Amino acid sequence: MPYFDAASAAPLHPVARQALQASLDEGWADPARLYREGRRARMLLDAAREAAAEAVGCRPDELAFTSSGTRAVHTGIAGALAARRRVGRHLIVSAVEHSSVLHSADAFEAEGGSVTRVPVLRTGAVTAASYAGALRTDTALACLQSANHEVGTEQPVAEVAEECRAAGVPLLVDAAQSLGWGPVEGDWSLLTASAHKWGGPSGVGLLAVRKGVRFAPQGPADERESGRAPGFENIPAIVAAAASLRAVRAETAQEAVRLRELTERIRTAVVERVPDVEVVGDPVRRLPGIVTFSCLYVDGETLLHALDREGFSVSSGSSCTSSTLTPSHVLKAMGVLSEGNVRVSLPPGTAEEDVERFLTVLPGLVAGVREQLGAPAPATAVRAEELVVDALGRRCPIPVIELAKVIGSVPRGGMVRVLSDDEAARLDIPAWCEMRGQEYVGEEPADQGSAYLVRRVS
Amino acid sequence: MPYFDAASAAPLHPVARQALQASLDEGWADPARLYREGRRARMLLDAAREAAAEAVGCRPDELAFTSSGTRAVHTGIAGALAARRRVGRHLIVSAVEHSSVLHSADAFEAEGGSVTRVPVLRTGAVTAASYAGALRTDTALACLQSANHEVGTEQPVAEVAEECRAAGVPLLVDAAQSLGWGPVEGDWSLLTASAHKWGGPSGVGLLAVRKGVRFAPQGPADERESGRAPGFENIPAIVAAAASLRAVRAETAQEAVRLRELTERIRTAVVERVPDVEVVGDPVRRLPGIVTFSCLYVDGETLLHALDREGFSVSSGSSCTSSTLTPSHVLKAMGVLSEGNVRVSLPPGTAEEDVERFLTVLPGLVAGVREQLGAPAPATAVRAEELVVDALGRRCPIPVIELAKVIGSVPRGGMVRVLSDDEAARLDIPAWCEMRGQEYVGEEPADQGSAYLVRRVS
Repeated sequence: MPYFDAASAAPLHPVARQALQASLDEGWADPARLYREGRRARMLLDAAREAAAEAVGCRPDELAFTSSGTRAVHTGIAGALAARRRVGRHLIVSAVEHSSVLHSADAFEAEGGSVTRVPVLRTGAVTAASYAGALRTDTALACLQSANHEVGTEQPVAEVAEECRAAGVPLLVDAAQSLGWGPVEGDWSLLTASAHKWGGPSGVGLLAVRKGVRFAPQGPADERESGRAPGFENIPAIVAAAASLRAVRAETAQEAVRLRELTERIRTAVVERVPDVEVVGDPVRRLPGIVTFSCLYVDGETLLHALDREGFSVSSGSSCTSSTLTPSHVLKAMGVLSEGNVRVSLPPGTAEEDVERFLTVLPGLVAGVREQLGAPAPATAVRAEELVVDALGRRCPIPVIELAKVIGSVPRGGMVRVLSDDEAARLDIPAWCEMRGQEYVGEEPADQGSAYLVRRVS
Repeated sequence: MPYFDAASAAPLHPVARQALQASLDEGWADPARLYREGRRARMLLDAAREAAAEAVGCRPDELAFTSSGTRAVHTGIAGALAARRRVGRHLIVSAVEHSSVLHSADAFEAEGGSVTRVPVLRTGAVTAASYAGALRTDTALACLQSANHEVGTEQPVAEVAEECRAAGVPLLVDAAQSLGWGPVEGDWSLLTASAHKWGGPSGVGLLAVRKGVRFAPQGPADERESGRAPGFENIPAIVAAAASLRAVRAETAQEAVRLRELTERIRTAVVERVPDVEVVGDPVRRLPGIVTFSCLYVDGETLLHALDREGFSVSSGSSCTSSTLTPSHVLKAMGVLSEGNVRVSLPPGTAEEDVERFLTVLPGLVAGVREQLGAPAPATAVRAEELVVDALGRRCPIPVIELAKVIGSVPRGGMVRVLSDDEAARLDIPAWCEMRGQEYVGEEPADQGSAYLVRRVS
């Protein structure tokens, strides 16, 4: 039963399990206490901090263990912003950050701060120049992920760090997706990560704050973890997190090459075998294990269920999933197709046969979903040189399917007007035009929803 | 090697260990995902929530799992205060709450809120009348622990809850010390707890918010745990926490009686065997496993080390410990002796022989510490009818030892003036006077530190 969603959470690494079980007996006591159980717990905590700091590339006293990667991000951003309040109240983030970063930015804005959301290229990457352009004299902090969690694209962290350094602005790097593969290059100021992404247990995040970087923890005071992570330390999980980080790093060199070959195989084969598919994300500067593609005329949730029935666990940034009505902010910022979106993220140790079987069953499943969705004909009416497709009340991917059905029935130069109140249409109709070589003219307000104008040019 | 510090952290309950290990395989995936690993994780989380809610005495949808008891308190207080901002900015806490509550109150005060700290009786208990007296029309929230963590005294939660209800003010109960023993009685509005206090794993706290209680989570938004606990859920630990809560509750009836007998034995025997000792906390309305006493003329840290060498792990609220220079705020609020303070908190399953051995070695260890400290004679000088003891620069328990040495050398009605710059003297000199039947006249400012005036009356 292949699990291809390591970017959400990786199963526990054997070393993590072993370390966790061993330290349940030794690490449960309060490390602040003077008696032997406390001293043993303190020793385990100190050793874990040293190991994790070495893997991060910082000093042990720069590293705090938080209760999750999300907490590390919330604490890191709030603490860095508060410490530089006198400099200004401006924050820079990329448009494709993890929700923990974007929600921190929203909270900061709600308190009166100002936020610049740096756009990305179609690959999902920012440019150092766009960060440089966003820096202001009142910028308190900039944030950039090391690599994107939905499409795997690596960000130019070292170059952005240089721009920030030149401007005297600290840079917080969310390394959640990449830390298992290696340390973050460049001169970052704060770094966050999450253990369950590299096969460590849930309940452990990392927050590193370089010496000399101003930091003022927010919220009620607490003496634990240098005041940066309130609450009783979860030492067995911390020990397991540090041990497994060291273990996955030792396996990295070999496994990175192998997984990169497997994802390259998927990148190539998907396009060959599935018609009307777009592979998204940078083809070269990317994490080894992640590959993301979108299938035209496909409902993401239905495809996920079909794959689940075949034993494959993947995730989707489509709007067509039960938990959300809007497409992933990442795909949106990249301007790529979101419908029928599938993210495959391979955990270390993924078997080649499982990938091959995935590639064997995928084309049939996509065809099946398309057939299932192809049925209902829209109410169409000719209006001068223009064809109107009324897709009001229809959800992604129906509006695009209806557009594709009728584009051939207007003459070249003629126009199709798609009426839709589905949020995803705003992203997917332009993306379809780009894939199909048709001209996307623009969006107009309509009585209900919007009208999307497409000119047939081919 | 008897561990007598269960009130800090209890060793992992066998049921917790079993549940943790089992759910490491089933509960690592993201419960928000649609595939089978996600669905399995969701099922485990739902089942744990139901079990924990039953033990708390609330509905499952009223209960969120946080990353620690401290986080539950921080989140609960901040969310309740923010939701009632329009009612007012007044918070009530008892003077003997856990530091997570008191630090939340400090943070609220720093933001412009006003805080009433309700005093306690010499037993450590508040009265419902004093809470009633503290309630104001602008009171947004009241907080009260179910039982005290340092002396074991149970608080009149149900009566205080009634006062709060009558005033329309929500009551948050910190049930960290008592939840393993049973549900909290009375009509509370919010409740917090911590799994590692009942033998669950570290990394799990509970926050219950009754339906109808206004609550506005603070900080960046997050969709997990009803928005009340950001970050990836730690499901294996949550499962273990819920399973062990159910297990300890099943053992409670029998174990509570047994531990109560053991702590009663300590209460009695300590006073019989150790001279100049004060047992503190309510002798009747108290938790089964906690007993706290203070030994005159003893340095708490030295006694802890001596006990540790004999294999006993206990903690101390004395100022004479390496991590702090001020006595425990609890002992201070109770107005009892803080020097040579020892808290014994027995975990379930404590063997009677271990308690007997503790009572056998304790008198000798206390005598040894006293002998060790008894040596240096102070510089004393007669001034009219008054004797001056210069204990400047000397740390607890030396000022009290020197006072005791000289009290006999002034006539009845005469005065001893103790010069001290040690924070603990302010608490311990009046407490010594009460124990010894001497009159504590008061404190006067001095060139350095303070002068404490004691009249010999017996």
